[in-house]
Amino acid sequence: MPETLTKQILAGKKRAIARLITQIENRQPQAQTALSQLYAHTGRAHLVGITGAPGTGKSSLVSEVAKAYRRQDKTVAILAVDPSSPFSGGAVLGDRIRMQDLTRDAGVYIRSMASRGGAGGLTWAVDDTLKVLDAAGFEVVLIETVGAGQSEVDIVKTAHTIIVVEAPGLGDDIQAIKAGILEIADIFVVNKADNPNVARTVSALQQMLELGRVPGGPVRHHGVSMPVDSPSPPKPVDGGSPWQVPVLKTMALSGEGVEVVVDTIAQHYQHLQASGELAVRNRTRLADELQTVLQVELLRRLLDRLPPHCLSEIIDKLVDKNLTPYEAVQVLLKEATE
Amino acid sequence: MPETLTKQILAGKKRAIARLITQIENRQPQAQTALSQLYAHTGRAHLVGITGAPGTGKSSLVSEVAKAYRRQDKTVAILAVDPSSPFSGGAVLGDRIRMQDLTRDAGVYIRSMASRGGAGGLTWAVDDTLKVLDAAGFEVVLIETVGAGQSEVDIVKTAHTIIVVEAPGLGDDIQAIKAGILEIADIFVVNKADNPNVARTVSALQQMLELGRVPGGPVRHHGVSMPVDSPSPPKPVDGGSPWQVPVLKTMALSGEGVEVVVDTIAQHYQHLQASGELAVRNRTRLADELQTVLQVELLRRLLDRLPPHCLSEIIDKLVDKNLTPYEAVQVLLKEATE
Repeated sequence: MPETLTKQILAGKKRAIARLITQIENRQPQAQTALSQLYAHTGRAHLVGITGAPGTGKSSLVSEVAKAYRRQDKTVAILAVDPSSPFSGGAVLGDRIRMQDLTRDAGVYIRSMASRGGAGGLTWAVDDTLKVLDAAGFEVVLIETVGAGQSEVDIVKTAHTIIVVEAPGLGDDIQAIKAGILEIADIFVVNKADNPNVARTVSALQQMLELGRVPGGPVRHHGVSMPVDSPSPPKPVDGGSPWQVPVLKTMALSGEGVEVVVDTIAQHYQHLQASGELAVRNRTRLADELQTVLQVELLRRLLDRLPPHCLSEIIDKLVDKNLTPYEAVQVLLKEATE
Repeated sequence: MPETLTKQILAGKKRAIARLITQIENRQPQAQTALSQLYAHTGRAHLVGITGAPGTGKSSLVSEVAKAYRRQDKTVAILAVDPSSPFSGGAVLGDRIRMQDLTRDAGVYIRSMASRGGAGGLTWAVDDTLKVLDAAGFEVVLIETVGAGQSEVDIVKTAHTIIVVEAPGLGDDIQAIKAGILEIADIFVVNKADNPNVARTVSALQQMLELGRVPGGPVRHHGVSMPVDSPSPPKPVDGGSPWQVPVLKTMALSGEGVEVVVDTIAQHYQHLQASGELAVRNRTRLADELQTVLQVELLRRLLDRLPPHCLSEIIDKLVDKNLTPYEAVQVLLKEATE
């Protein structure tokens, strides 16, 4: 049975894709079997993260970008990691109707994921879902997040190309540009370009870019980060000229400027390949993923080895302030190895 | 020296508090020594989480709530976990001036934390910082976050009392209310109550509350959650009547409605004590914290035990699709135990 499911997914069958993603979300063990079979078929999709605050028109932009890819005859998957996005419950009617053109298209797959159940759990589910969409043969995967919180920044960081959407007149300009977002953007899009304040937002972004872009290092979790040094770091083919982060203007509702966004995404991908950065980003993403899976497994093994009631008794001691959390960890590790 | 630092912190000295928090942020090992000494003095502060989207006037509300506590002669610490908050770089001048009354007050301590460096790392630093502020004797600790991302929801979840701030006319009403936030709110505050749309926002919130509040379970990370069952679960003293989540209205700029917010926070704390829920929340928080510390320690120990180059070689195999992440974890665990 799982073999049939993976075969169907490799053939791009939407119902099979949906079924496996649901298994991933529900943490059903058979999902791992299917994912192992799909793993060798991953690594071909261009992962594009699109993030921005609510009210920037990010979801409309995602729809228009997907349509532009379809006009180029490229297949697209959209993974919306945001409970208030048009793809899930919180949809406004206009967005739903606009999306219908896309959902009827065989070359498009749309899926939403709610950001419940803890940051790590979501990152994990997103990682696995991206593998399914990649193996299913979608040439471009658009990952849409609200991007205001760290876990959403972490999700969008896994993409090859990161687009940050801004809009004029959303509170003050400085507030709209989240710290941590500026550093990871490969492309800025100022949407709602018909707004009279658009020039101010564009120049605010350009000024911040000129003030110096801090290159984003590997994602760190819980204070320990996995060493990802490659024994033979890829050499830049194009002489290593850095990517100049462009600030583009769009009106997603009319589609204006969207073709330029799609062209710029393609240019960025070419840059990643030519500079060797694609390999570096892929390696970092896999190391992060390995760390997540490893931490879950280590904790599970430790809990399995503990004598009954041991954990509960140690939490009692924490509550009574007889142990600090750091002392409690030492006791737990000792108990588990005895 | 560290003894002097903890003594100064226990005496509420601001410079000592600031020094230890900086050590925590920089992950300096001596911070753990000081934290161990402070641990027995924690558990007295009322932790109040205040969260809301940018533009809700959440930061002004936090200032006014702090001032109201000062009028009651209660000491207050403010921990702002949001890079765009008035307490850090992204401040607008008006907010800075407004905060000056507070920073000069010996009974108020204000600290901001940037949400960089990964979700888990931040949660950890926040947990430890809350312990410092608690041990320093602040009666109320206000934890301010933007609350749009899962990691910020996780941070605010550690509070005893959770306030969600909304404002009328911020995009559509449904979008402003993030999934996952509704379930954890103990008090809703609709700020900017002079806005003509305030009635619509209040009734939208009330309707959503009537539709059924999902009680928030223990925070789950990475698919494994620590069992927190107490051998003797605390019995509700007041017959276990549930807390009715109130929807309050404020105008933070004029201070209107803020006294009611402060009174309601006190009522909620009384409810937590009477119902036994305070003990449950404290236990859950400590179990979550134990899990975070444990996962870091487990990973660190594993990495220490690995032969040189082993990790790098396994990441190579991941990159080349010769191993899946799940297979890679099994290999790493085997290598570390041999």
